[in-house]
Amino acid sequence: MSFTGYPSKLLENAVSEFASLPGIGRKTAFRLVMSLLKRDSAEVRKFGESLIKLHEEIHYCKICHNISDTEICNICSDKNRDMSMICVVENIQDVMAIENTRQFKGLYHVLGGIISPIDGVGPSDLKIDSLEDKVRNGVVREVIFALSTTMEGDTTNYYLYKRLSKYDVRLSTLARGVAIGDELEYTDEITLGRSIINRTPFTSPV
Amino acid sequence: MSFTGYPSKLLENAVSEFASLPGIGRKTAFRLVMSLLKRDSAEVRKFGESLIKLHEEIHYCKICHNISDTEICNICSDKNRDMSMICVVENIQDVMAIENTRQFKGLYHVLGGIISPIDGVGPSDLKIDSLEDKVRNGVVREVIFALSTTMEGDTTNYYLYKRLSKYDVRLSTLARGVAIGDELEYTDEITLGRSIINRTPFTSPV
Repeated sequence: MSFTGYPSKLLENAVSEFASLPGIGRKTAFRLVMSLLKRDSAEVRKFGESLIKLHEEIHYCKICHNISDTEICNICSDKNRDMSMICVVENIQDVMAIENTRQFKGLYHVLGGIISPIDGVGPSDLKIDSLEDKVRNGVVREVIFALSTTMEGDTTNYYLYKRLSKYDVRLSTLARGVAIGDELEYTDEITLGRSIINRTPFTSPV
Repeated sequence: MSFTGYPSKLLENAVSEFASLPGIGRKTAFRLVMSLLKRDSAEVRKFGESLIKLHEEIHYCKICHNISDTEICNICSDKNRDMSMICVVENIQDVMAIENTRQFKGLYHVLGGIISPIDGVGPSDLKIDSLEDKVRNGVVREVIFALSTTMEGDTTNYYLYKRLSKYDVRLSTLARGVAIGDELEYTDEITLGRSIINRTPFTSPV
């Protein structure tokens, strides 16, 4: 049964907002809104404000492009981390996944995506220039490509290799303990942790 | 993989809010928040405000207890509707479901639940007194019990019958075209529409 004829415009608006989220249909959206209606006003206000604040107060770290509450994120401003190692990842989920393994003490660089011609994502859409700047400046001794082991990940790896191999820097990738075709963020912590320890020098596939 | 160590408190707050919704786990909540982060600030503000407004500006109709943008809902204030017929439903989803059939031109009465000892819901938790008031006032000629055909629905039907049968009013229930054991809001429109047309006089099961 389709839900037309909402008794309230306010209700309909809230349902439409939830239904605009990926994987949430109108029926589910309606149930979510109904569950919110059963709560205290203060609780729902907190929910709404958390979304508004999230967007308006959040920062992206100026160094690694990870999400952060401050201009420079906790990881980049941590003096105990090894500034000579940069782990290149697709998105912030991947930073969190690798941090959870507790196997990596260097810094990150979040590309903000992966080269994917089908999705219309090219190198210029990603934070690659700022990565090259870091490598050119000479502090970095090693760049670890920690991208998903998919076609797009391999393409991006190769592109990064072409951009960075002219500098005096070691390029490595995660050990192929990560199963081929798997998304990085779904890999178990043991495998992912081991694949950082056993990272291998990057070799051009061509 | 569990997502501990959020890079941002703002992010974590937003994820926690989504994860507090029924049927939404932390992983899904995280994906929803990430999808919001990719949107315009104005869009996300609209989302957040729609929730806050929903709670703070919404009304429950003083007559039928349906959700409404005004003190008296659209249905109760519609002069073309038959004020002598009241359809008693569990919740606003059921009002919407019956409205969608376009087979009923009377008014509604939303109980706000159903008698369910297991869930600790008794008659005093429901809007039954105000229903009895309406019937006592004498304008109502027929009350249609449109509750789910479950044990709880039957219990509530019987309780309402005991409360209302002393008045000069016709009591009816939906025709048993609705399959036994089904929730009302998932019934298809044809069956539900027909069951309103073929409603039968209420007979006490005891």
